Formats: sequence, C-alpha cells, structure tokens
Amino acid sequence: MLTFEIMLEVDENKSLEGNVELVPQLTLDCVIFGFHGSSLKVLLLKWKGTEYYSLPGGTVKQEESLDDAAIRVLKERTGLDKIFLRQFYTFGKVERYDRESIRKKLAHLVNPDLWYKRPISVGYYALVDFEEVFPNPDLLSESCGWWDLSDVPELLFDHNEILEKALHALRLELSFQPVGLNLLPEKFTMPDMMRMYEAILGKKIDPRNFQKKILKSGIVIKLDEVKKGVAHKSPFLYKFDANKYEEVLKEGGLFFI
Amino acid sequence: MLTFEIMLEVDENKSLEGNVELVPQLTLDCVIFGFHGSSLKVLLLKWKGTEYYSLPGGTVKQEESLDDAAIRVLKERTGLDKIFLRQFYTFGKVERYDRESIRKKLAHLVNPDLWYKRPISVGYYALVDFEEVFPNPDLLSESCGWWDLSDVPELLFDHNEILEKALHALRLELSFQPVGLNLLPEKFTMPDMMRMYEAILGKKIDPRNFQKKILKSGIVIKLDEVKKGVAHKSPFLYKFDANKYEEVLKEGGLFFI
Repeated sequence: MLTFEIMLEVDENKSLEGNVELVPQLTLDCVIFGFHGSSLKVLLLKWKGTEYYSLPGGTVKQEESLDDAAIRVLKERTGLDKIFLRQFYTFGKVERYDRESIRKKLAHLVNPDLWYKRPISVGYYALVDFEEVFPNPDLLSESCGWWDLSDVPELLFDHNEILEKALHALRLELSFQPVGLNLLPEKFTMPDMMRMYEAILGKKIDPRNFQKKILKSGIVIKLDEVKKGVAHKSPFLYKFDANKYEEVLKEGGLFFI
Repeated sequence: MLTFEIMLEVDENKSLEGNVELVPQLTLDCVIFGFHGSSLKVLLLKWKGTEYYSLPGGTVKQEESLDDAAIRVLKERTGLDKIFLRQFYTFGKVERYDRESIRKKLAHLVNPDLWYKRPISVGYYALVDFEEVFPNPDLLSESCGWWDLSDVPELLFDHNEILEKALHALRLELSFQPVGLNLLPEKFTMPDMMRMYEAILGKKIDPRNFQKKILKSGIVIKLDEVKKGVAHKSPFLYKFDANKYEEVLKEGGLFFI
C-alpha cells in the first residue's frame, strides 16, 4: 500500500530539491545498460501508484555541464561513481510530449500544464557492471529495476524511441568503445563474452570464429583458472588487457557487425 | 567600406526576424562539409567589421523540431533544400561562452550581457555537393565562404572543438552513411573518390587496394565515359549504384579506418 504526499507542482526553472536554477526546457534521459546471464538489460523506473515505466532522467542545473548532470543522475539511480557514459543523441520533436496522455496517466503525480512546452532531452547511455549496481528510485517513482531488453514494456513519453536509438548507438560503437570492459565482470569466460556480443547485436555469432578473432586481437589474457559450478567441462576464465584493448579499438580492428 | 545599422540587442527568447518565440538558451551549430579538388572544406562566416570567424548557426523556434531548425539554417546559408544532415553531439559546458572575450571581439555587434547564460548547442554536420552551394552570410556576418580544413583559423566561442568533433563523427560514420553520394558530384573518377576518403581520414590510402575494394563492393558503376581535360591518360568516370551502396552500408562492409 502506497501513500502519497502532495502532488508535485514542478516549476520548470527550479530544481525539486530547492531553489537551484535549472536550464529551462532541457532534460536528460539515461539508458543504463547492464549484462547478466545471456541478456542485455536496461534500468527502468516505475512511476508511483501506476503501471507505467520510463527511463531514468533529470534536469540540468545552470552551473553544471551536461556531462556533470548525467553523472549526477546516474549516481543517484545506480549508486555508482565511475560509470562509462556516452552522449548519443538529443531529442527535440515538437510532439514528443503529449499533454493529454500525461494528464490521463500521471495526473495524481504531476501537473502537465506546468510543463507547458516540450523539453529538449539529451540522451546518454551508460554501461555498468550489473553486479555492482543498487537501483534506486527517484521522487516520482516507486521502484527502479532491471528489465530484459526483450521484455521492455511500452514506456512513457518517447522513451521507447530513446532506448531504440541508444541501442543503435551502442551497436555502432561496439568496435570503437571498450564495451566489454564495462559490461562484463572482471573475470569472464569466452562464452560469456560471446553472449554479450550476441545480446547487443541481436544475432547469433559463430563461436569458433569469435574465439579465434578475439584471441588473435590480443585484447584478452587467459587466466590459469576455470569457472566453477558449470556442468561438464569447466571453461577457462579470461580478463581484458586494457592497454591492448584500447590500442585495438583505436585502430578500429574489432568488427562484428 | 562597411556601414552598420544599429547594434543588435539580441533578446534570447525572441527571434531576430520578429516575435516568434524561441526555445530559451538553446542554439544550433552547423558544420557544412564540401569536397573540392583534393580537400575537404567547411563553410565559415566572417563577422561584420572583424577578422573573426565562426560556424553558421541559429536558434530553435518553439513550434519547430531540432531537425527542422537545422534544415532551415542550412537552407539560409547554402540555398540548398535537400541536404544530407546528421545530428552528432550537443555541447553544454558551463564555460563554453566567455563573456569578456565576446565583449572584446564583438562589442560593436552584440551585447553579451543579454546572453547572460551559456547556451546549449546542438551540433549538426551536413554533406553538400560543393558545386551546388551559393554561400550566404547571416545578419551578423559580412561573408560566408569555403575554407580548406587544413587552413581553418581560430574560431569564435568553442567552434574549433565543434568542428573537431564533427570531423570525428564523419570519420566514424564513413562506413555506415552514404558519404560519397553526398560529397562527390554525380560522375567522378576513382582518384576523385580516393582523394575524398583521404581528405576525411587525414591519411594516405593505397590506391590499388582502394580500387579493388570499391569495385568488389559493387557500389559504383563504371560509365562508358572518360574525364576530359586531364593530362596524360584520361581516367574513366563512375557513378554510384545508390541501392547497392545502401545495402553494403547496412551490412557495415566498407571499412577504411
């Protein structure tokens, strides 16, 4: 059973926490990706007293850069300080907020008449180690949790489109950014790594070619250790050679698309 | 000899053309790339009565999407209606505008006290056919012209950084976007195309491998025509097979980086 205080009368130019002045008509939306088991996951907020979900987001203070605002929002939602973060697109269609739809769904929480114009929203995606995150809801949400990418429901506002675009950006940057270093735990097996690529690309990869290509690139170091608790043959563990990984990415040599 | 009307008292929330309401504290900056001879060029504005240059830019009207605002600005500066246009990054550092520096350089044109907070600027890059553009200055500039990428002077505001980032985005997208289709004239030689890749990547390419790779990809059609006015052996002309080009890009099969 949930109890609500008062409906939040959001003043566009003031922060919820007090009198900090905000950049008007500007927001951030964050697509926080994690990887667990064999699937790519994304962090969603459930709005108080509703069955509606959205991406985590926030506002930008006048004395804060866009990147700093994104770092702050991500720390609030995940508890993590150091996060791999990329700005990927800014959303600015006139019709991105439908006031009547907001009124119908969220009238007990917000007054859409105070959001009288569409905000421009800067999209960031983040890659986090699933096991290190403690999801934390914001003022308007009752829970914050991981969703399998394939189970994501219809989201509020234009957030399905934002998620789609973030995934597209992640795919394009898979060859240029240290994605594995940020999504995988410190030690991982070759099948773990392959499943991460498959989850991001949304397609099957040939395991033999994959292993050959990764080993040839030199970006991973084979450890003298196997993964326990796995049926049959225990697979070897690997870790990244961060310097070599960076070098190979700079040369653009890791193409799976 | 130049004569100035009055200094423009720019109201952040109103358009220069009249009472159209603008999205506050938000601007656009456009990096317009063209290709000519063997070099990549960019369109710069020279501010009235100064030796200072900047990228073309503009504001966003309340009833206009970001993309529509960029299309409008590009049409105003180039005369072109249909332009290949990509949003690549949004610039939002607190210190991106230095009021004292603006006062020193542009005091006869603008009153920086009216720009009391840093604008957030959405960066777009455009690829245009050099030969079809008629550069056109804006209200604050006396000329608008092409500059070789290697000769670009120190620009106003953070525009050198914006240009750098646009070039980086163009390099990354060279394999996924129909760059050649937009930068080259309808008919071109193999050396023309190679020089375009070299200009964007900023490095030499092996001509034999290049020709082999391009021909194998099937994205160009050899015409029964040679380029005239070239010394010695006249090289054959080619044109793009637009459908095949699109198909190959979708598969991500054109890597030169």
